Amino acid sequence: MPADEFEIIRNLFARYAKSEGARGLKDDAAVLEVSGRLVVTTDAIVEGVHFFSDDPIGLIAKKALRVNLSDLAAKGAKPVAILLTLAWPTTRPAAEIEAFVESLGEELDQGGIDLLGGDTVSTHGPLMISITAFGEPIGPRIPSRADAKPGEDVWVTGEIGEGYLGLLARTEEAAVADFRQPGRAGTLRLSGLIAHYCGALSREEFAPLIARVAGASADVSDGLIADLSNIAAASRVAIRIEGEAVPLSAEGRAFVEKRGAEGLLRLVTGGDDYQIVFTAAPEARAGIEAAARQLGSSVARIGTVLAGAGVVATWRGAALEVGAAGHRHRLGS
Amino acid sequence: MPADEFEIIRNLFARYAKSEGARGLKDDAAVLEVSGRLVVTTDAIVEGVHFFSDDPIGLIAKKALRVNLSDLAAKGAKPVAILLTLAWPTTRPAAEIEAFVESLGEELDQGGIDLLGGDTVSTHGPLMISITAFGEPIGPRIPSRADAKPGEDVWVTGEIGEGYLGLLARTEEAAVADFRQPGRAGTLRLSGLIAHYCGALSREEFAPLIARVAGASADVSDGLIADLSNIAAASRVAIRIEGEAVPLSAEGRAFVEKRGAEGLLRLVTGGDDYQIVFTAAPEARAGIEAAARQLGSSVARIGTVLAGAGVVATWRGAALEVGAAGHRHRLGS
Repeated sequence: MPADEFEIIRNLFARYAKSEGARGLKDDAAVLEVSGRLVVTTDAIVEGVHFFSDDPIGLIAKKALRVNLSDLAAKGAKPVAILLTLAWPTTRPAAEIEAFVESLGEELDQGGIDLLGGDTVSTHGPLMISITAFGEPIGPRIPSRADAKPGEDVWVTGEIGEGYLGLLARTEEAAVADFRQPGRAGTLRLSGLIAHYCGALSREEFAPLIARVAGASADVSDGLIADLSNIAAASRVAIRIEGEAVPLSAEGRAFVEKRGAEGLLRLVTGGDDYQIVFTAAPEARAGIEAAARQLGSSVARIGTVLAGAGVVATWRGAALEVGAAGHRHRLGS
Repeated sequence: MPADEFEIIRNLFARYAKSEGARGLKDDAAVLEVSGRLVVTTDAIVEGVHFFSDDPIGLIAKKALRVNLSDLAAKGAKPVAILLTLAWPTTRPAAEIEAFVESLGEELDQGGIDLLGGDTVSTHGPLMISITAFGEPIGPRIPSRADAKPGEDVWVTGEIGEGYLGLLARTEEAAVADFRQPGRAGTLRLSGLIAHYCGALSREEFAPLIARVAGASADVSDGLIADLSNIAAASRVAIRIEGEAVPLSAEGRAFVEKRGAEGLLRLVTGGDDYQIVFTAAPEARAGIEAAARQLGSSVARIGTVLAGAGVVATWRGAALEVGAAGHRHRLGS
């Protein structure tokens, strides 16, 4: 990219650099005013690994942001600002950058999030977007993965397996017959699943609840089982999941009816859900359900924290072979 | 990379995640304790654009860090923590990661800088390292590029053109004859210049002085003239540089003797110097020189801030054609 191009890109981004500390994206560094603790996270997505080359550029932009916001939500933090590193392939039309910025900016505006700075570089390789996100903790506690205690319930927001079904709908037309719902509503839902896969999610609305009640908490990015395994390992506890309690959409339920235990296993290990899984004391049950109702969202109690190690899951009276299951961050695996 | 590999990498990095807030690199996010203002910067380097594929991996690691620390030093800030995103090519031996981590860790240990978190991803493209660095401002002011005022002096630390000569020594053996100094000392200096180019610099020791006296300040990454042009544009002033006052090493002086004005022009536009250029009131002259002496380092007064716009430079009684000169972040250009 010629130097002028970098200048044009900076001007596109500058619209979203609203704080004084961002210095109009024209300085070597930015200044962030903070009182107390800052929650920071960084996640990168790479073309051909985390998204497809021909995914809509606007959804790629949203995914790059949301995978980071999802981490903040899981820590009970409110996003305030981001830094962006964009490695733009020499072979990708520079004109697409405009759509990228607009889509990212839409999300930033909606969330009241400031673009604090960044770096744009040319690459002979794949498109890569790395975002660092800054959040303010909402409550006094910032739940980690290591805070689960025996006796706690395990909860998850929304529905599990939507990312996996979206990937299937995106890549394996034949497989769609196993879960597609009838009529025009079914068709619309298919596009919704694909958009979920391509654009990710972030459940910011749950951050205040997480801050208030969560023991351990994580976002479901690598698959429900893998993320629960991380919690179990970090907290030195065991986690038991009831397969029947895992919340599924109509498509998810159809997929499991058709494919049985192997189908359920795919949904709970598929990754890219970007829901939040957390533990909480049994006394918090009524409060959690009331909070979800107030948000117009769903949460499901799916299991229990026990003394021991590892994750076990049952379904229809038998053990689910969750073993070393997890998501490898590779397309189609 | 298989998932186990990511686990191994995390364990390598975890040695340098020393603060409680880093959570052993095992959480979705990290917690940074801050009082007041935080200076943040992010810079990425890409194989084939900012470094060569066969540069020593340890120097690549240091460059990735130092280009960020250099930005903090130019803002009068002390580095406290970093986040690291590493896109590791599937074709590069995973064993090299160990050397990468060790070299990066050495720098972190030396600077008392915490590794707060990061993300490691596989890529089919070039090696790319993106670092976000956090610094605490040393003084009440955080100098920007927009703070230069007519009447101020322009200063630069160290010597200019070392990055460019290092690039020449790295890539054009024939050109080395134009600046190589005699004897074994000359040979050693050549390796030093190459190491400067490959590993970058960061002049943290100057951060307290910058915090105290600088009007505008920036690091010299894109070339002295380009970085001064940015200061002039952001501050809406003109800057006049005296070519004779630009500090050069023995190699730099030899290069200019041999190549004349065109040689000097290359040194002041070559980039990758990672010195700090700043403006200061004339009253600060004695204090700046005393501070540099105390550091055992050099600073040079190279010009003046004037009313107007743009950068002009003179050398041996004539104008230097600095025009739109700048560094394009491409190897060999």
